[in-house]
Amino acid sequence: MYSVQKVPPLSPYFCQLCGKKGGWGARRWRSTIAGVSLAFSPESATPQGGRRGVLTLPHGVVQTPVFMPVGTAATVKAVPQGVLEELGAEIILANTYHLYLRPGHELIRRLGGVHRFMSWPRPMLTDSGGFQVFSLAKMRKVSPEGVEFQSHLDGSKHFFSPEHSMAVQIALGADIMMVFDECVETPASWERTRDSMALTHAWAERSKQYWMEHRQEVPWAQEFSGHQALFGIVQGGMYADLRRESAERLVEMDLPGYAIGGLAVGEPREVTREMIALTLEHLPKDKPRYVMGVGYPDEIEEYARMGVDMMDCVLPTRAGRHGLLFVREDPANRSSPVLRLNIKKLEFAEDQRPLDEDCGCPVCRRYTRAYLRHLFASGEPLGAALNSIHNLAFYFETMQRVRGEL
Amino acid sequence: MYSVQKVPPLSPYFCQLCGKKGGWGARRWRSTIAGVSLAFSPESATPQGGRRGVLTLPHGVVQTPVFMPVGTAATVKAVPQGVLEELGAEIILANTYHLYLRPGHELIRRLGGVHRFMSWPRPMLTDSGGFQVFSLAKMRKVSPEGVEFQSHLDGSKHFFSPEHSMAVQIALGADIMMVFDECVETPASWERTRDSMALTHAWAERSKQYWMEHRQEVPWAQEFSGHQALFGIVQGGMYADLRRESAERLVEMDLPGYAIGGLAVGEPREVTREMIALTLEHLPKDKPRYVMGVGYPDEIEEYARMGVDMMDCVLPTRAGRHGLLFVREDPANRSSPVLRLNIKKLEFAEDQRPLDEDCGCPVCRRYTRAYLRHLFASGEPLGAALNSIHNLAFYFETMQRVRGEL
Repeated sequence: MYSVQKVPPLSPYFCQLCGKKGGWGARRWRSTIAGVSLAFSPESATPQGGRRGVLTLPHGVVQTPVFMPVGTAATVKAVPQGVLEELGAEIILANTYHLYLRPGHELIRRLGGVHRFMSWPRPMLTDSGGFQVFSLAKMRKVSPEGVEFQSHLDGSKHFFSPEHSMAVQIALGADIMMVFDECVETPASWERTRDSMALTHAWAERSKQYWMEHRQEVPWAQEFSGHQALFGIVQGGMYADLRRESAERLVEMDLPGYAIGGLAVGEPREVTREMIALTLEHLPKDKPRYVMGVGYPDEIEEYARMGVDMMDCVLPTRAGRHGLLFVREDPANRSSPVLRLNIKKLEFAEDQRPLDEDCGCPVCRRYTRAYLRHLFASGEPLGAALNSIHNLAFYFETMQRVRGEL
Repeated sequence: MYSVQKVPPLSPYFCQLCGKKGGWGARRWRSTIAGVSLAFSPESATPQGGRRGVLTLPHGVVQTPVFMPVGTAATVKAVPQGVLEELGAEIILANTYHLYLRPGHELIRRLGGVHRFMSWPRPMLTDSGGFQVFSLAKMRKVSPEGVEFQSHLDGSKHFFSPEHSMAVQIALGADIMMVFDECVETPASWERTRDSMALTHAWAERSKQYWMEHRQEVPWAQEFSGHQALFGIVQGGMYADLRRESAERLVEMDLPGYAIGGLAVGEPREVTREMIALTLEHLPKDKPRYVMGVGYPDEIEEYARMGVDMMDCVLPTRAGRHGLLFVREDPANRSSPVLRLNIKKLEFAEDQRPLDEDCGCPVCRRYTRAYLRHLFASGEPLGAALNSIHNLAFYFETMQRVRGEL
C-alpha cells in the first residue's frame, strides 16, 4: 500500500520526501534534538478533525495518524510479515520484556537487530518493558534504582533499570524506543500516583541520559543512517493535576515524541478520553503524540480526531484469536457504527457472505463467514490467522479513512 | 505455478488439453466407464523412471506423479489456500470422517460443496472415512452391513455403510472419491486379513453401485461439467497372495483409478516397498495408481519412480508443526539426501541461513533458521505455519524434479 524507502540523513535543508533542497518537507521539519533523525510534519487537519502527519524514521516513512500492530515476540501473532506489508502496516511494535527474556537482546544484536531478525524492513517501535514487568512478571521489588522481577516463563530473577532498558532497546534497534516508566496499579490514590509519577520522571531523565550517550550504537548503524528516537511517557493516573504536571515535566526534557501511558487499564472510557484530551493540551504540537495500548476501532478513530498521532493495541489480533471480528453495521457506509461479530455463533454456520461485504482485505475477498465459523469451531490454526488478518485490515482501513485517504 | 482450467466433458474424440478434435490427448485417453470425466494420460517415463501423466478432473488438470497435501477439516493445517496455490498444489485431500462430523456433509452440500465451502477451486479428493473410523473413532462394531462407531469429538453414535460413505462423499463433491474399506489392524494374521479383504471387496461393489446411481448429484453439477470419479482400494495387509487377489478383484470392477491402502501402518519400509511393487504389477497401466498415506520425501520419490502416480500424507504439515524440517544435505544438489532439521536445537539459535539455501519457497526467501527457531521455541503460531509451508514446498519440489520439470 505504501512503499518503504531508505531515508537519507536528516538535514534541515533537504526535503526528505522529495529529496530536493528547500523542498516543502524541509520547511516543515524540525530536528527536536540535534542529530535526532526523526522528523514530524503535521501537514494539516484531517477531514474529520485531528491532524495529518508524516513520521520519517531510519527504516522508512509513516503516515499519521497511525495504528501500530503489536508484534510481542517479534511476530504479530499468526500473521506473516508479507501479509502485514500487503495490508499496509507501516510500523509495528515489539515488546522489550519478551525479547529480552527470549531469545535475548544480545542474540538479536548479534544478528543485526530486530528488523533483520524478523525480516521486517519497515519502522518499528519497542516499549520499555516497564508495563510487562508490572503486568506479567512474578514478584516485583521496586526501588529508586529499578525493578527486580521474576520471569513469567521460568521464574528466573532479573533486574531492569532505566539504563538497562535503554541498553536492551538499543540492542534491539527499533526506530523508536520508550523511556522506562513505572506503571501504577488501578485504582491508586493521589499520593501513590504522585510518588510513582515522580519515580517515572527520574527514570525518564536517566533514560534520556543513557540514550544521548549510546543512541548511535544500533546494530544497523552501518546500513541505515540516523539513529533511534526516544519518546517520553506521561503518567499521572486518573488525576488531571498530575497528568498536567507529568506532561510539563517531560516536555522540559525536549524528547523527540511523547506517549500517554497508564490508560485503558480498566477505567471508564469517559475518563480515558478526558485524560487524553487534557494531556494533549500540554504536549507540543510539532511532535508526535502517542497513546499506548488503545483500543477498539471507534476509540482509535475518536482519539485520532482529537489529535493523537500514534496508537497500538493487541486487540485486533487477540480478538481475532478469540473469534471476535470487527465489521461495519452498514458495510456500504464505512463510517457506520462498528459491530463485533462473534464468529462461533450458530447464526453464521451457513452464512455465505464475507465478514464485511465492502472490506477489501484478503480474507473478505476469499472466505465466507460459514467457513471462518467452521475453522474457529474446529480449533483450526488457519482460523486465528484469517481472523487476525481481517481485524488488522479493519483497523488500517479505519485509519486510512481518518487520514482522508479513502 | 499451474493454471486451473475448466474442463470440458470427456469425449473420446476431443483432446481435453488442446481442445482440438483428434488432438494428441484424445488418442491417449480412455473413458474407463462410460461417462466418467476422468482421463489419465501416462505420457512417458520420467527421466528417473516412473511415469509422467496428466489427470483431467472436473476442477482442473493435475500433473502426475503428484503429492497431495491433506486438508483434514477442509483446511491444510495452518496454510492459507492462496499460499497452497502459490506453492503449486494442484490437488488436495479432505477427510470425509472429519467433515461428516463437523460441520456436517449436508451443510457443505447446501453451501455448494467442499470446493466452494473452503474456497479451493482446484481438484480435490476425499477419502472414504474408513481409515479414520478405524483409527480415531471410539468403540467400533463392524458388521457386513457397515460400522457403528462413536465420534472422537463428543462420543455421539454413528453408522457408516458403503452407501452412506458414498452419499457423504457425493455431498462433499470432491473430484475423486474412495470406496469404503475396512482397514485391518497391524499386525494381523493371514486369515484375519483375508476376511477383512473380502469385506472390503463386498463394500467396494456396494460403493460402486451407489456411485453409479448417484454420481451426477454433486453440489456443483450446474457449474462444472463432469462428475466424481471413484477409486478402488487394494487391501491384503502384508500378504503377497492377498494383495494380488485384492488387486485382481478390484480391477474386475473397472473403476477409474486404484489406490493401495493399508500400508505405512508400522511395517518395515522394505515391506511397504515390496507390497507396492507387487501390487502395481496387477494394476492397469492406463489408470492412475495411488498409494495412500505415504511418506517421507525420499519415499514419495522412490514410489513415484516405481510407477505410483498419486500420494498423500500429513507428514509435511504435521512434521512442520513439530519443528521438523526437510532440507537437502547439499543445498546446491537437489538430488542429495534429505536431512531432517529439528529446528528447536540450540545450534540454530544464531544461524542466519535460510532453512535450505537453494529452496525457492517463500519461507526460505525471507526468514532465517534463527528466527524460525525463536518462533518455535516461543510457541508462536507463525512458526507452525512457516514450517508447514516450507515442508510442503519441499515435497512439491521433489515431485517437480521427478516429473522432469526442474
